[in-house]
Amino acid sequence: MFNRILVANRGEIAVRIIRACRELGIETVAVYSEADRDALHVQLADEAYCIGPTPSKQSYLHIPSIITVAALTGVDAIHPGYGFLAENSDFADVCEACGITFIGPSPRAIETMGDKSAARAAMRRAGVPTVPGSDGLVADANEAERIAEEIGYPVLIKATAGGGGKGIRVVHDRASLRQAFATAQHEAETAFGNPGVYIEKYIERMRHVEIQILADRHGNVIHLGERDCSVQRRLQKLVEEAPCPVLSEETRRRMGEAAVAAARAVDYVGAGTVEFIYSLDGSFYFMEMNTRIQVEHPVTEWVTGVDLVREQILAAAGYPLSIRQEDVVLRGHAIECRINAEDPDRNFMPCPGQITEYLPPGGIGVRVDSAAYPGYVVPPYYDSMIAKLIVWAPDRQQAIQRMLRALGEFRIEGVKTTIPFHMKLMQNERFQRGEVTTRFLEEHPL
Amino acid sequence: MFNRILVANRGEIAVRIIRACRELGIETVAVYSEADRDALHVQLADEAYCIGPTPSKQSYLHIPSIITVAALTGVDAIHPGYGFLAENSDFADVCEACGITFIGPSPRAIETMGDKSAARAAMRRAGVPTVPGSDGLVADANEAERIAEEIGYPVLIKATAGGGGKGIRVVHDRASLRQAFATAQHEAETAFGNPGVYIEKYIERMRHVEIQILADRHGNVIHLGERDCSVQRRLQKLVEEAPCPVLSEETRRRMGEAAVAAARAVDYVGAGTVEFIYSLDGSFYFMEMNTRIQVEHPVTEWVTGVDLVREQILAAAGYPLSIRQEDVVLRGHAIECRINAEDPDRNFMPCPGQITEYLPPGGIGVRVDSAAYPGYVVPPYYDSMIAKLIVWAPDRQQAIQRMLRALGEFRIEGVKTTIPFHMKLMQNERFQRGEVTTRFLEEHPL
Repeated sequence: MFNRILVANRGEIAVRIIRACRELGIETVAVYSEADRDALHVQLADEAYCIGPTPSKQSYLHIPSIITVAALTGVDAIHPGYGFLAENSDFADVCEACGITFIGPSPRAIETMGDKSAARAAMRRAGVPTVPGSDGLVADANEAERIAEEIGYPVLIKATAGGGGKGIRVVHDRASLRQAFATAQHEAETAFGNPGVYIEKYIERMRHVEIQILADRHGNVIHLGERDCSVQRRLQKLVEEAPCPVLSEETRRRMGEAAVAAARAVDYVGAGTVEFIYSLDGSFYFMEMNTRIQVEHPVTEWVTGVDLVREQILAAAGYPLSIRQEDVVLRGHAIECRINAEDPDRNFMPCPGQITEYLPPGGIGVRVDSAAYPGYVVPPYYDSMIAKLIVWAPDRQQAIQRMLRALGEFRIEGVKTTIPFHMKLMQNERFQRGEVTTRFLEEHPL
Repeated sequence: MFNRILVANRGEIAVRIIRACRELGIETVAVYSEADRDALHVQLADEAYCIGPTPSKQSYLHIPSIITVAALTGVDAIHPGYGFLAENSDFADVCEACGITFIGPSPRAIETMGDKSAARAAMRRAGVPTVPGSDGLVADANEAERIAEEIGYPVLIKATAGGGGKGIRVVHDRASLRQAFATAQHEAETAFGNPGVYIEKYIERMRHVEIQILADRHGNVIHLGERDCSVQRRLQKLVEEAPCPVLSEETRRRMGEAAVAAARAVDYVGAGTVEFIYSLDGSFYFMEMNTRIQVEHPVTEWVTGVDLVREQILAAAGYPLSIRQEDVVLRGHAIECRINAEDPDRNFMPCPGQITEYLPPGGIGVRVDSAAYPGYVVPPYYDSMIAKLIVWAPDRQQAIQRMLRALGEFRIEGVKTTIPFHMKLMQNERFQRGEVTTRFLEEHPL
């Protein structure tokens, strides 16, 4: 087993990883930027080292500084969390070269899933349903036109180096295709240094449904049910729940099997998520695979009873998974709200500053993952999420009522937060009925 | 359904009840003593009324004040919590007479279970195993001597009006019986205004194991597994867990059935707990029934997924139970530590005062039930419990590690607490092995 792990992240996910390590009896080394001297992850870790100034490129993304701390403190492994270096195959390569275990899949798996067109091709070969579209990259506008005719408009032109909603253009008819194709190539080149684009059928009314998987080094791959993350604003998830309120048992099983096939196709190890487009007609298609722990992992933890970060660490250390597929039983309903330091009345403008009062909600069925505390100053340099509020109840209706209760109790003074937005959402009748697509907030502003 | 409930209690249990009401869409009316003006339950309730000065007899135990607030605010029901008026059959009677639902069993059930000798007789009639001893009250020292010879020493002489460990004398041999009998009668008369005593075999090495039951007004009575509350100090529970680490599936079933029979014998309605002496030879005996929600109810909530306070309120309102016996499935392991404002280095001396810093632990598998907040002043007039820390994990070993992690994170400054005691306990090898009797702390001081 690992004796010591370096946590190459900040905020709530760094705290989450430190908690898992402590429960496993593993020492933790935190790293932090100059803006994060007083951060909770720094206080909770066994040791903490400043790795540079505030800009992430000089600290949380600066591989040499992180590897230096890892070498000097003699850690066995590095946990990258999410964001920052979590899906950087070069970083995973460097760790491997230095004899430090990267807690995540192989550099090859990261690379394949990071190249969207290559991932799509790999999924097709593995028999995972993909959205109708081009077979790999599209060479020129003529080919693009031909494929678009074949699959029918509207279509998406997507940068192969994109992901997470970046580098995408929607094309509604033939007249605008050529112009859009040229612009997309140019944007992809500028944004990602790679002009490669591909084409997919655009499914307008969809839910975002994703499957959590776990895999060990012994060939075991299991799925742990789905999360519905359809409530999004500008392609950013705001609320996630498990299970998806509209998925049939049969579709859940097929989607789970597809996710396992996707993971097997890249010899995946650790915790990962296969994201699917779930069309309202019940069909589903591979969207992308996130080769890391996700923000919304706690909803799956609560309905399955499985500690995903613990399993991730154990798998990286070479242990077999602690559960088998037949032991995965979903119980009840969990919902997560991302509480951001943003002003929902001013177009979700970030509101960094000092949290003068802080008291998280408690009691039955409430979990808070946060790095905030009374007096904490939310820095303006990083993402604005300050807490994840997760609730569990025997059914979705009770979970919504519990979330409303917990949101109402959450005391955060000094900065504006998205709590009022979430309270409105939980009271919205369409949301309560589970009638939500990824365009819900656009079509029905709260 | 009730529109409005008065919560006749304070501290964490008042907060617990307010939370359940909010999730059910029921308005809440809090009452408070002059010492509790700034209490959290006062802040969280929809309305709050001062019912008198600090001494409990003039406020939380003062029935006319509470009934007056109930009448003026037009509540449908009163939830008594635990302690104070929770097991006062006169109060339940007054509520009934005023047309207000008392959230608990009938005054008759409270009365029967409150008279320990009568309860014992009722249990015998219902076929629930009781400790060998007298058949009802013992008239004089001669009868006491005869019974003690019959059942064998050591024996207990217990006040029928006692309970919760009060009014009990242990007698080890015949020589000391007569003196002890006279003293016990005298003490019972002085303490409870009732000199009635009875005799039981004293089982020296036992675990305290109790069964949670739920009953509705439609004849449904179910049990929800057991809690082991053997870690006690001077008969006060400090740590509780579910399930009991040494109970067999067969004993669990028989004990559960005995608890259901006990509840049926008094036409019980609501949430109740049947406490058993669990002898290390595997036999068990009825100890007493607590006709209220208990401090340690959250461990059962976590392993069963059932919200006991919600069910209690729904049952009082006439709804059938939301679960059937066959739906009760125990999952994983839960442990609760009572965090008291006491100094474990000074014989657990109470340490009231201002909590200058307060940050509860969070993350996976952690629940905190508390009425504390940063700046809260713990008054010296009430019991010293300031928080209940409850953890859940797939097994007991992981639950202990999680508890240690959470205890280590819990930040309470300004008052001494029992957190260091609990940390030592969780690291104790005997406790970790589950080898604990009610005399554990006496025999193995930490």
